[in-house]
Amino acid sequence: MIVTIIGAGMMGSALAFPARENGNEVRLVGTPLDEEIIDACKKENKHPKFDKKFPDGVRFFQFDEAEEAKKGADFIIGGVSSFGVEWFLKEVLEKTAPGVPVLSVTKGLIEDEDGALISYPEYWEKELAKKSVRREICAIGGPCTSYELVAHDKSEVAFCGKDEKTLRKMKEALATNYYFISLTKDVHGLEYAVALKNAYALAVAMTIGLYERETGKIGELHYNSQAGAFFQTVKEMRALLRAEGANENSENIGVGDLYVTVYGGRTRKIGILLGRGLSYEEAMREMNGVTLESLVITRRLTKNLRERAERGEIDVRNYPLVSSVGNVLDYGEEARLPWDAFTFEEL
Amino acid sequence: MIVTIIGAGMMGSALAFPARENGNEVRLVGTPLDEEIIDACKKENKHPKFDKKFPDGVRFFQFDEAEEAKKGADFIIGGVSSFGVEWFLKEVLEKTAPGVPVLSVTKGLIEDEDGALISYPEYWEKELAKKSVRREICAIGGPCTSYELVAHDKSEVAFCGKDEKTLRKMKEALATNYYFISLTKDVHGLEYAVALKNAYALAVAMTIGLYERETGKIGELHYNSQAGAFFQTVKEMRALLRAEGANENSENIGVGDLYVTVYGGRTRKIGILLGRGLSYEEAMREMNGVTLESLVITRRLTKNLRERAERGEIDVRNYPLVSSVGNVLDYGEEARLPWDAFTFEEL
Repeated sequence: MIVTIIGAGMMGSALAFPARENGNEVRLVGTPLDEEIIDACKKENKHPKFDKKFPDGVRFFQFDEAEEAKKGADFIIGGVSSFGVEWFLKEVLEKTAPGVPVLSVTKGLIEDEDGALISYPEYWEKELAKKSVRREICAIGGPCTSYELVAHDKSEVAFCGKDEKTLRKMKEALATNYYFISLTKDVHGLEYAVALKNAYALAVAMTIGLYERETGKIGELHYNSQAGAFFQTVKEMRALLRAEGANENSENIGVGDLYVTVYGGRTRKIGILLGRGLSYEEAMREMNGVTLESLVITRRLTKNLRERAERGEIDVRNYPLVSSVGNVLDYGEEARLPWDAFTFEEL
Repeated sequence: MIVTIIGAGMMGSALAFPARENGNEVRLVGTPLDEEIIDACKKENKHPKFDKKFPDGVRFFQFDEAEEAKKGADFIIGGVSSFGVEWFLKEVLEKTAPGVPVLSVTKGLIEDEDGALISYPEYWEKELAKKSVRREICAIGGPCTSYELVAHDKSEVAFCGKDEKTLRKMKEALATNYYFISLTKDVHGLEYAVALKNAYALAVAMTIGLYERETGKIGELHYNSQAGAFFQTVKEMRALLRAEGANENSENIGVGDLYVTVYGGRTRKIGILLGRGLSYEEAMREMNGVTLESLVITRRLTKNLRERAERGEIDVRNYPLVSSVGNVLDYGEEARLPWDAFTFEEL
């Protein structure tokens, strides 16, 4: 098959490994923000952020060569971050023949006209429908960091979409002895689950900073309070996902994804900073102003919860963990967690 | 209140901290195996394995002083390991006035006459009933390592038992601003959940050793495959717990407990050793022959699953993760995980 990946960030680029090692023709196309990355890839056959070369035969394209890269593609992998959602809609989805299926790795939720949170595949399909374009957008969810995929650590993910045949084709192209793929039609549930985990990973990581602040011991790792927050996370995620009609396996994938995200890079780092008592603005300065997807999703989620609570649809007291993080981000409150509110009585 | 703790291992001893810091009279009694520990505690007011002194006022007793230590106790905390279950039955439960409630920290499952797995509180109550003794045994479940409890890291646990009043009394005695206690009557479900997590923590840790073996890179940490196993764990634990009629909050506590156990000491270590390809016997030698509770529970669980499968009650293929660990322990198979069997299709 011919697999064209658009977006040369870490995740998009990492997918070139199973795609190419499986014998497909693989074309990696940078967005306009990826020009230097693509230059480097062309020169050294290596992504600047990976410590390993691409498998032989991956071809690299700047975005102005995208038309050539898309020619004859069996499907396109969308590898942009959530900050590229609009760009991807206008520059890729609207400019690619509707018959070519798309598999997206972009994680997140966005408010639709009714104030409900929907996933990006759902959002894109809605926007395209306004222009009478019917396009099928599948997506990847599940615990998988890019650099570990590159290292061939076994990874379990799920592809979601509406059409069984398309999903099977994508799985056939990408399944290897280190990349294991479940298939589900539960697009909303799976994408909601793996978006939620970003907000909750922030909460679990926050416990590390809270302990450091309380004890003055920076860098000391501990797990009791992380695990306490993890327990509460599973409880809150379940309730939220059930209300969305998510399948149970989508929840399970979300919990696995939470596990890996707690250890992963910037979400963990900013969670710790907030826990130490930094305000949102201070933490952003420490992160050199890089806006994190996990912050965006947390704010959208807590805003959505407050609105639903106002409409009497939910009781926000059932979500004390994520609400506490929301209070830090939205109202500038100093980080704290209401540990007592996590206890339950079943007597 | 007067709280008498019997068993001066790490967990029993750690509970002296919230108990004493809450203003109770606390008496820590060693088992006959704890003589040196109690000597050290009497001399230095410090448990040899903790880096922090006990709060002032904890009193220490050798087991031959147990009668004195139990005098007037509002309740007794049982702090023995699962290898002390019979000893605790004969030397403590049978020799203590039945009206004194007991709160046990011992984790595990044991086969009853019908071949079903029951928790230790249930086992003890059954055994005592044979001698016409009616005694109430409560238990603690949840993510809480002893040394982090000592360090005042926030910990979320649950106490389970049959009598609301007793549970409330125990909570009143032990709840502090770092030890948060839920209450539940779901004794079987909670204890089953926190026992299961020992087996599954072994499985998650095994992925680390498997990757080391495959790549030859010892000590390199990664999380994709851990998270893949974590996802599958949540799926299998849920199914197992539902079949036991466990409450959902007990499951959630079990998942939180899994999170902390994956990082904790010997279960993690032996999981990694098995993953590297060591046999059960070789791994035991590396651990200096210390038999681990997590190995015992895994073998009991997988034996139980095979028996239920033979009776046609379950399909063992729904539990590929824990079955794989069982195959290593029971049949000397080399560690491997059937990653493909963890994928699902919902089409």
